[in-house]
Amino acid sequence: MNKPITREQCLTLDKSDPLASFRDQFELPDGVIYLDGNSLGALPKKTAARLNDVITREWGGDLIRSWNTAGWIDLPRRVGDKIARLIGADAAEVVVADSTSINLFKVLAAALKLNPSRQVILSEPDNFPTDLYIAQGLIDLLGKEHELRLKPADEIFDSIDADTAVVMLTQVNYRTGRMHDMKAITARAHEQGALMLWDLAHSAGAVPVDLNSVGADFAIGCGYKYLNGGPGAPAFVFVPQRHQAKFSQPLSGWMGHAHPFTFDWKYEPAEGIARYLCGTQAVLSMSALECGIDTMLEADINLIRAKSLTMTDLFIELVEQRCAGYDLKLVTPRDHSMRGSQVCLSNVNGYSMMQALIARNVIGDFRAPDILRFGFTPLYLRYGDVWDAVDRFVEILETRSWDRDVHKQKAKVT
Amino acid sequence: MNKPITREQCLTLDKSDPLASFRDQFELPDGVIYLDGNSLGALPKKTAARLNDVITREWGGDLIRSWNTAGWIDLPRRVGDKIARLIGADAAEVVVADSTSINLFKVLAAALKLNPSRQVILSEPDNFPTDLYIAQGLIDLLGKEHELRLKPADEIFDSIDADTAVVMLTQVNYRTGRMHDMKAITARAHEQGALMLWDLAHSAGAVPVDLNSVGADFAIGCGYKYLNGGPGAPAFVFVPQRHQAKFSQPLSGWMGHAHPFTFDWKYEPAEGIARYLCGTQAVLSMSALECGIDTMLEADINLIRAKSLTMTDLFIELVEQRCAGYDLKLVTPRDHSMRGSQVCLSNVNGYSMMQALIARNVIGDFRAPDILRFGFTPLYLRYGDVWDAVDRFVEILETRSWDRDVHKQKAKVT
Repeated sequence: MNKPITREQCLTLDKSDPLASFRDQFELPDGVIYLDGNSLGALPKKTAARLNDVITREWGGDLIRSWNTAGWIDLPRRVGDKIARLIGADAAEVVVADSTSINLFKVLAAALKLNPSRQVILSEPDNFPTDLYIAQGLIDLLGKEHELRLKPADEIFDSIDADTAVVMLTQVNYRTGRMHDMKAITARAHEQGALMLWDLAHSAGAVPVDLNSVGADFAIGCGYKYLNGGPGAPAFVFVPQRHQAKFSQPLSGWMGHAHPFTFDWKYEPAEGIARYLCGTQAVLSMSALECGIDTMLEADINLIRAKSLTMTDLFIELVEQRCAGYDLKLVTPRDHSMRGSQVCLSNVNGYSMMQALIARNVIGDFRAPDILRFGFTPLYLRYGDVWDAVDRFVEILETRSWDRDVHKQKAKVT
Repeated sequence: MNKPITREQCLTLDKSDPLASFRDQFELPDGVIYLDGNSLGALPKKTAARLNDVITREWGGDLIRSWNTAGWIDLPRRVGDKIARLIGADAAEVVVADSTSINLFKVLAAALKLNPSRQVILSEPDNFPTDLYIAQGLIDLLGKEHELRLKPADEIFDSIDADTAVVMLTQVNYRTGRMHDMKAITARAHEQGALMLWDLAHSAGAVPVDLNSVGADFAIGCGYKYLNGGPGAPAFVFVPQRHQAKFSQPLSGWMGHAHPFTFDWKYEPAEGIARYLCGTQAVLSMSALECGIDTMLEADINLIRAKSLTMTDLFIELVEQRCAGYDLKLVTPRDHSMRGSQVCLSNVNGYSMMQALIARNVIGDFRAPDILRFGFTPLYLRYGDVWDAVDRFVEILETRSWDRDVHKQKAKVT
């Protein structure tokens, strides 16, 4: 084992951190170490003032005129263009709309239509459940000719074959933090004549993503995790230029129409990515998302990634140095190329331990059956926070205080 | 013609208006007469403070914990229960989610599944376009065995026949203000073995609706018009108890799962209305919607309806008394039982006239090809406003100032 890491070493890392100043752009409650930004990102300082302006001036003062004068009508594409810069997409290839689940329905329907001779949607059983549920709902609706085939993560590559219509994967696993090799799997899918659909829920704003470089066919992602868009923020959908004209998605609402304000009775899809819009979008929530993305765009994603890996390495090493003997198993891969921006530990008492941590203001979360999940968000976390989080964890373990806390704490379900 | 109506008579009406005090619950810009609350409702005074609290305290301060401690997880059903009281539904029959278009997709899929031997979706060509677009998208996805059959409004009743799977109508027409007889058409649909799906976009909060009394099978509606929920507010969906267990809708995201936080790979729909949820909901926008509905619930919908009819009668009579000779044709029915809460006039120069009105702070809107649309929202409009609006219209007509204004005003597309 390496020499014990000291708190002073962590504070020294903070002093030379090129991202250190970003913490000032967030509102964070005193004393809280927030390791759940992968579930709900923290509040950017600019958001409250911006939303107040949207509500009082744009809505209250200018009323219906703000659809034009405040640019509400352009929000989905404007914010989409900003997200495109974070995920290696071109302008006009991303639009913000609806939820991740609904956007998946749109592109999964597109993928099946574009690969009509094949029936299999290939995914993994440990994919985030809503992705699997949406696939099941679409298959049921289409009449069950299609099949959702599930293979463990490490068998996916070899399971892509001539039956595969589309490979549907979340790049970073929500429960383990394991990251797929996007380039290799996309290439394999194409070799086998399959399309590749990536869910970037735990990637966008957390790891560098280069969709067009790897040749991804479709992608979706979440606004309320690393993009700090606020609770239930709208999601995004990516369709590259080469696929946009080929298919008109089935949630064909008026905002995806070529001419929404001519009020024709017949649907005519808009040119380009706008056809992936459906109904009128939630302007307040989308305006908050824009604040989160604007904050994110000021940082270099490569610096974010470097800090994330240093932080997760530090957390792992501190846990191994200081929490040995408590049967905490590392679930997240050690290999940097296979790790997202979280560290997961398993323990049969994981639920109670996490409740005890939360009671001590170290906020991570728990995922059934036994996983303690810690998310690392380099924009607002300090190396000193990592040290302090493990320090509080050590105290909980040494005093077995989680054994009492479980009776005192109200169940936390999210 | 009746004796000319004076401004003083209108001010007298305001003095005895039992809803007069509600105007104080809204933020309205000085000097503006807002006749477009049927497109985007005005800002309730409580909304800005409430949203600031949701953002700074619930999100910023309590972070992920607010899904439980602030009740975010219950918002769709809690707000749904409140809307139920406005539309004659029972508790647990309405949920707030997504957009009107997306909710229509869910219930239209349900209706086709519950009436599997029939192929026809019956609607009118002048229905709000997104409803027709969604029907076309669903039919395309299902493989085109189904047919969208369009008949003019006054032929709908007689067109319901043994081929009709579902009748899909918007109760109050967005362009004309014409209102269908919900009771008679629903009864006719049931006589013929068809299901009845109502879009309440221009009804909820504007006219009394009693879904269970008329036996409606499905309904959807909009949060940002008469419910004053803010731009792009989430929409709602109604499914009566008797239909809830029969079908699991295809947008089967995790929030509609029986146990979303057990993270099973297999979709199992929630009991009851919750299965009409899909993904994570936009908490900020939904919190604003709740403020609008809370404001609406303080008023008696029958008083709202009575004032709406008095106001629209007044507007019609004033236009006929004072704007005669300008070829303004009344598009909205005079019969109260066939009129929603708007008055529409047609004129070949309607677009320019509306621009001139807006330039004089009388905000209505224009619908192609030739319709000037004026919405009346009894909670925040005064009879004096109606008189003043017509007075400014008279000035525009007499001076032909719309003829110049068209060159000065920037096009308004919504």
